[in-house]
Amino acid sequence: MTDTRTQSIDTDDKAVLRALDDLDLPALTAAVRPLSAAQIVGILERLDRKQRAVLYRVLPKGQALEVFENLDPSLQGDLVGGLQDDAVATLFAQMHPDDRVELLDELPATVARRLLQGLPPREREITADILGYPQGSIGRRMSPEFVSVRPEMTIRHALERVTERLSDAETVYTLPVTDGQRVLVGVVSLRDLLRADPDATVESVMQPATWARVGERAEEAARRCADRKLLAVPVVDNETRLVGILTVDDALRILEAAESEDQARISGSEPLRRPYFTAPVSGLVRSRVVWLLVLAIGATLTVQVLEVFEATLSQVVTLALFVPLLIGTGGNTGNQAATTVTRALALGDVRTRDLFKVMFREFRVGCALGLILGSLAFVVTSLLYGPSIGTVIGLTFVSLCTMAATVGGVMPLLARAVRADPAVFSNPFISTFVDATGLLIYFLIARTVLGI
Amino acid sequence: MTDTRTQSIDTDDKAVLRALDDLDLPALTAAVRPLSAAQIVGILERLDRKQRAVLYRVLPKGQALEVFENLDPSLQGDLVGGLQDDAVATLFAQMHPDDRVELLDELPATVARRLLQGLPPREREITADILGYPQGSIGRRMSPEFVSVRPEMTIRHALERVTERLSDAETVYTLPVTDGQRVLVGVVSLRDLLRADPDATVESVMQPATWARVGERAEEAARRCADRKLLAVPVVDNETRLVGILTVDDALRILEAAESEDQARISGSEPLRRPYFTAPVSGLVRSRVVWLLVLAIGATLTVQVLEVFEATLSQVVTLALFVPLLIGTGGNTGNQAATTVTRALALGDVRTRDLFKVMFREFRVGCALGLILGSLAFVVTSLLYGPSIGTVIGLTFVSLCTMAATVGGVMPLLARAVRADPAVFSNPFISTFVDATGLLIYFLIARTVLGI
Repeated sequence: MTDTRTQSIDTDDKAVLRALDDLDLPALTAAVRPLSAAQIVGILERLDRKQRAVLYRVLPKGQALEVFENLDPSLQGDLVGGLQDDAVATLFAQMHPDDRVELLDELPATVARRLLQGLPPREREITADILGYPQGSIGRRMSPEFVSVRPEMTIRHALERVTERLSDAETVYTLPVTDGQRVLVGVVSLRDLLRADPDATVESVMQPATWARVGERAEEAARRCADRKLLAVPVVDNETRLVGILTVDDALRILEAAESEDQARISGSEPLRRPYFTAPVSGLVRSRVVWLLVLAIGATLTVQVLEVFEATLSQVVTLALFVPLLIGTGGNTGNQAATTVTRALALGDVRTRDLFKVMFREFRVGCALGLILGSLAFVVTSLLYGPSIGTVIGLTFVSLCTMAATVGGVMPLLARAVRADPAVFSNPFISTFVDATGLLIYFLIARTVLGI
Repeated sequence: MTDTRTQSIDTDDKAVLRALDDLDLPALTAAVRPLSAAQIVGILERLDRKQRAVLYRVLPKGQALEVFENLDPSLQGDLVGGLQDDAVATLFAQMHPDDRVELLDELPATVARRLLQGLPPREREITADILGYPQGSIGRRMSPEFVSVRPEMTIRHALERVTERLSDAETVYTLPVTDGQRVLVGVVSLRDLLRADPDATVESVMQPATWARVGERAEEAARRCADRKLLAVPVVDNETRLVGILTVDDALRILEAAESEDQARISGSEPLRRPYFTAPVSGLVRSRVVWLLVLAIGATLTVQVLEVFEATLSQVVTLALFVPLLIGTGGNTGNQAATTVTRALALGDVRTRDLFKVMFREFRVGCALGLILGSLAFVVTSLLYGPSIGTVIGLTFVSLCTMAATVGGVMPLLARAVRADPAVFSNPFISTFVDATGLLIYFLIARTVLGI
């Protein structure tokens, strides 16, 4: 009961933060003692690097491992730098092989090599296997510690095998079934094993397997695990031989990271890949400045378009008044379409080959939006600035929205088709493109209607 | 093996689509037969309403239930309208109570009431209990079909109880432990039960529980399940009495829907809540037009600001050239900050009370970004348009970026503080606000520097 009651952590971490600020180690040790590992992880993920190292070092040994395992890999990497070598080696040997690979990716190559060499031979071999798969593939994120059974085994025998592996297997709730050549032929759940007649064979209760290929993008495999509501997905090589297993908790973390990335990219910044408060200000600046510069350089296109029409502008200064409104609406329309399609792509609702289907849909949506906004704008601007300005603004809204929605819908698919991240090539680029094209449309319509 | 090999569904669904286009029912039945339920779900989620009803009706009875259970609730709702009453009643009675409630929320009230009345009494009672919890709370999404054990039970007894409930419980892998008053006192995993001495008590192997309160926001409870890598989280009432269980697969679906919503809102549209191709064009228009209008009306503020400075503009038309570039950069800077903070809020890395901490960080980030972009812009524009215009543009960049990042970082926290969705009140509003304020800053700086 004590632990359940302290779940609201806001009151408890104040004592920890105070002790940290005062660098009062005895008080810190006392303040940490009643907290659960999850609470300590929550506190660590909001501290800066130095305070994090201090807090971590006062943790009791048993808890330190649990806390370490649950930390974001970026923070594990930070901590390793500040701990003594033997402490790190012990931690490292006790980690799950898939978590270990995630940590290795965070560390400088020399540190990573030294840690790998310190592992017991079997662990080192497993880890090296995982490290052999390409970055971003599910091979990197799966666990090689699975329990598999054979179709001809009796249920009793299969349950015995499970019992032997209760302590070290990644999961015992979903068991891959393989033949003599280690080829995956199905899966069986522990629940079904427990429910079946002990003398029946595994074959009689096994189900067809949903699996992932080891070189597949981790996000795709994780999405499959989620979509089919599975607790685990076996991972196979090109000959359908079982090489590992992806469990749902790892799938969740993969999807969470993928979504953070998508959101960052949609807003035109590089993903942080670490909790907000643990990133230094310089890190935040770095993650944003490059995209901001690229986009600003792209936006100089608008300056050039406007220069072409400078004469028109000085003749009718009123035209300048609507520039932010028009390009803002164009950008919003484009972003709406792009975000919808990017998300549908991520969820697998839309695929690359749907390009023309999406284009036609978004064209119609854009038309409809343009007609609604355009007629409203026509009425209002006609009343305030006269019918010719009203006509220009109304017509611009119609063509702008149609163009923006179509471009916004198509861009993520084109990006995916050339194997780029749809989120990168969508919103920020669309805004820039739509801004420049929109101005062109605006001034061409204005010249025609106003006869200048 | 047949099923594993047909996992790449692109080849198989062509035959289905062709048969659907021709309305050739025998061919359709034949084309569907080799497909797994997951593949059929994939196809159904890309069809329009009429074709979906046709395809669903040719499914063999056993598969129809599995397919139905795995469909998005919005599509279940569509199908119910086209099926015969007794077929619906059968389906409905066989669903899990939590899935049933999701479907009920999709249906018109009269249909929902009729379906509820057709349920067997026990099922009706369970469903009514869930329906009693507020919309959006975890009470609505949990399963009331849990297996709980008592701390003083022997492991043997606990395992017997699990065995009895293998067929109907939502999960048997995580078991809540409750005392005589149904108060939650811990959890025990099936793995630990299997590993322990059968004569020991449950108390000796149980762990402290991570739980959710029944009225809590579903997203928060799901995030907790994900963060702590749990297979299930017990749900309790205000007296910590066990009322249900949230399993990780349901947590995943809750998080997926929450992320789709966030992404839609960040781009200024209402969430679709159904797969892209199943939404009619009018639905897409509806999900976007209101926000587009609201934002366009907000953007008329920029027209008003520019009107105030119309005299300045006609004196120096060159100033108009930079308007899109400047407000575009301001909008991008604001969006970057807002998206980062919105995501950090969703992940629990940042909380409402961090307002000033975030404000100060984003102020510094904005300053740094403004100085970098501003000095570049100063150099380039000075060369092209002379030093006074260069000074105006450079200074505007610095103040604009600082303002935009600060506002962008603070807005999501203010939104959360007043219990609004941070994603709604962030990006689109920030763009509009930053556009208008940015123009004001720009022209004030221009007037001062150019002395007009």
